[in-house]
Amino acid sequence: MSRIAYVNGLYVPHLAAAVHIEDRGYQFSDGVYEVIAVHKGKLIDMDGHMVRLTRSLSELEMAWPVGPKALDIIIRQVIARNRIRDGIVYMQITRGVAPRNHAFPDHHNSALVITAKRFPTFNFDAANKGVDVISTPEIRWQRRDIKTVSLLGNCLAKEKAARAGAYEAWFVEADGMVTEGTSSNAWIVTADGKLVTRDTSNSILNGITRLSILKLAKQQGVEFVERAFSLEEAKAAKEAFVSSTTSFVKPVLHIDGDPVGDGKVGALTTKLLAYYGDYLKAQAA
Amino acid sequence: MSRIAYVNGLYVPHLAAAVHIEDRGYQFSDGVYEVIAVHKGKLIDMDGHMVRLTRSLSELEMAWPVGPKALDIIIRQVIARNRIRDGIVYMQITRGVAPRNHAFPDHHNSALVITAKRFPTFNFDAANKGVDVISTPEIRWQRRDIKTVSLLGNCLAKEKAARAGAYEAWFVEADGMVTEGTSSNAWIVTADGKLVTRDTSNSILNGITRLSILKLAKQQGVEFVERAFSLEEAKAAKEAFVSSTTSFVKPVLHIDGDPVGDGKVGALTTKLLAYYGDYLKAQAA
Repeated sequence: MSRIAYVNGLYVPHLAAAVHIEDRGYQFSDGVYEVIAVHKGKLIDMDGHMVRLTRSLSELEMAWPVGPKALDIIIRQVIARNRIRDGIVYMQITRGVAPRNHAFPDHHNSALVITAKRFPTFNFDAANKGVDVISTPEIRWQRRDIKTVSLLGNCLAKEKAARAGAYEAWFVEADGMVTEGTSSNAWIVTADGKLVTRDTSNSILNGITRLSILKLAKQQGVEFVERAFSLEEAKAAKEAFVSSTTSFVKPVLHIDGDPVGDGKVGALTTKLLAYYGDYLKAQAA
Repeated sequence: MSRIAYVNGLYVPHLAAAVHIEDRGYQFSDGVYEVIAVHKGKLIDMDGHMVRLTRSLSELEMAWPVGPKALDIIIRQVIARNRIRDGIVYMQITRGVAPRNHAFPDHHNSALVITAKRFPTFNFDAANKGVDVISTPEIRWQRRDIKTVSLLGNCLAKEKAARAGAYEAWFVEADGMVTEGTSSNAWIVTADGKLVTRDTSNSILNGITRLSILKLAKQQGVEFVERAFSLEEAKAAKEAFVSSTTSFVKPVLHIDGDPVGDGKVGALTTKLLAYYGDYLKAQAA
């Protein structure tokens, strides 16, 4: 079966799915996006993604391409037409097509593209395999709280990680503090068992999975604090992991080649992954 | 006559010119570009633009979509097919189409889009009309030396300028120093008549028109220095102007509403504009 994409009002074969060369997403990275997990046919954390999308559009004063209800219907159509049971939906909204000019166009005809693809379902054993991360200087812009497609800095860092055989790169600011990964949030567990992830600001994207993990930690009585931590603190931490829509809770075994704790998957990380697995199951029930 | 665009090997009507939704330019702003002026049918500073393009591609480890010679031929074809005598050529190269993944794709099939449009020819009287600029915090990424399409920060600042009735916004770093405009370089003339523009580093794009002005200043015995200057110094300067492929040398009369010098077009600015006009004429001869 060939994949189907939604592009500005039409459901088209993925191979033929195209946008105009003067779409502002292409010329200016003037667009936002969301990646939503689908588990057993159910959209995971759909409310959270829609809240964040609303904020992204609002921060950039970008118009909704269609209303939120219509958007919900189209997303479900794309899932159905691609027969996705377990996978992800990718949705991108840009400020539409206009003759090239940095300032906003007169119109508010935002462009909408939605795709979906199958993706391995949540698998506890596979998910709990540890990965390595490297550190890289934070050189990105200062509105990382908005989920834009202005991702070149993320791409360069992820490529650097890939070449180092690592799963992810953590951005480190000039003052030594970790912001986040290229497509995930960064977490550590301190020697006294406290869960730590950076507090929200313009410095990081507030991950939907990040929020779910904090909610689960609270429910389960896991002590946590939202604050910045340094690369040094991370390397000396008991455990570390990354979180994202597609990584769930992914244990980090090495940072820049140095083992985190004993270099094995941590106990609290394993617990959180189990909580998260149950959380997904509950939503997919 | 309908406009013609070049897209990945084909000359197509502008309205139908499209790229795939998984072009990395659209999803990641993983692309570079150049805007080249055409004056009396001649490409202005073509060598400089090609040198910079070569550097941009090299810094991002992005492959040439076609060889430099073929690129030159295609650019001239686009100019001819659109019957451009005075105007601009826009050329965008991205890392091509690949399933969405931050790290680079396996292939090196860069994508190439070239458009051209008519633009008012160089007109001394119109060019010498002064404009106003505003200042805005520098929030962009730290590789502004590469001419990428990761321009969302530039767009937001230009929109801010437009709403303030200004022509351009100058980015100002936390330390008070001006980097550059959203699509132009920033210049001042000190009380003792010295021309100042920021020295090149990762903080600014090395404008082709910037380089031409420096060359002309040298030829004409105009004293100049390449160094950072503060917003405060700019506001207290004798003259100020911006430079770009499409702005040439554009006098700045007000910064954040405060008059620069006597709030009129400056004498050295007028001279440099005349030198630049002659320089264009010589290339178009």
